[in-house]
Amino acid sequence: MLGYQHILLATDFSAHDQYVAQRAKALQAVYQAKLSLVHVADNLPISTGMLDGQVMPFDVDLGEELMRLAQERLAKLGAELEVAETDQWLVIGSPKLEIVSLAAANAVDLIVVGSHGRHGLALLLGSTANGVLHHAECDVLAVRLKDN
Amino acid sequence: MLGYQHILLATDFSAHDQYVAQRAKALQAVYQAKLSLVHVADNLPISTGMLDGQVMPFDVDLGEELMRLAQERLAKLGAELEVAETDQWLVIGSPKLEIVSLAAANAVDLIVVGSHGRHGLALLLGSTANGVLHHAECDVLAVRLKDN
Repeated sequence: MLGYQHILLATDFSAHDQYVAQRAKALQAVYQAKLSLVHVADNLPISTGMLDGQVMPFDVDLGEELMRLAQERLAKLGAELEVAETDQWLVIGSPKLEIVSLAAANAVDLIVVGSHGRHGLALLLGSTANGVLHHAECDVLAVRLKDN
Repeated sequence: MLGYQHILLATDFSAHDQYVAQRAKALQAVYQAKLSLVHVADNLPISTGMLDGQVMPFDVDLGEELMRLAQERLAKLGAELEVAETDQWLVIGSPKLEIVSLAAANAVDLIVVGSHGRHGLALLLGSTANGVLHHAECDVLAVRLKDN
């Protein structure tokens, strides 16, 4: 049977993330696959202070704090899903590119990602699910979130 | 466990369609789900003859012949996948809109569709997988085709 061997769950820690995680966990279970976990932290926006030539230490601290929180949430979700620590990834960059790149480098054959559909900002900017679908070299399961 | 109850396989009868079908069939099996099948025939292009005010009977026959062939291929694939005849759909229209509409009307919770990635014409026109992802109210599995 044509199953999946390595599933990568891309999490953004949004309110409905648990639902996406359950979909990924169910697939991992039925296919007896390996499950990995990735969270991509977007590049932090440049502060107006920096544009004025002033470096604000506040922004640096905020970035470190956000990364520490992200690491905590990733570890928590990883524990819930029984994902080994070595298979939990926290990356800074463009979500779609980092997810696709990590998948290719680790022989992932299915990426699971939440999808908000084509609403609001996604209409203009394109969603992460959309970007992953465009660029991934493997299958992509877009789990529909009902919140918007 | 968070499984799927009704999976809709969207087929375009392309060379790699069997691969997408196997993915859908595997999911149907592991989740003990219902499997339905849809092929959407794009609206036939207007012939230059018609633009000149001439109706060419050839085009009408061609359309009917294409639909007959599509019906045959759908029935063949349906038989291979053990999909009931009443769950095989042949529709004329816009693939993304017809697939999404059929899914919504039949309580489909997972659409399986082949994806060619962002190459060639898809860059300009958007692919069916992309359109389905944008508009679907349920989960979408985009099965990556390796041919281009």
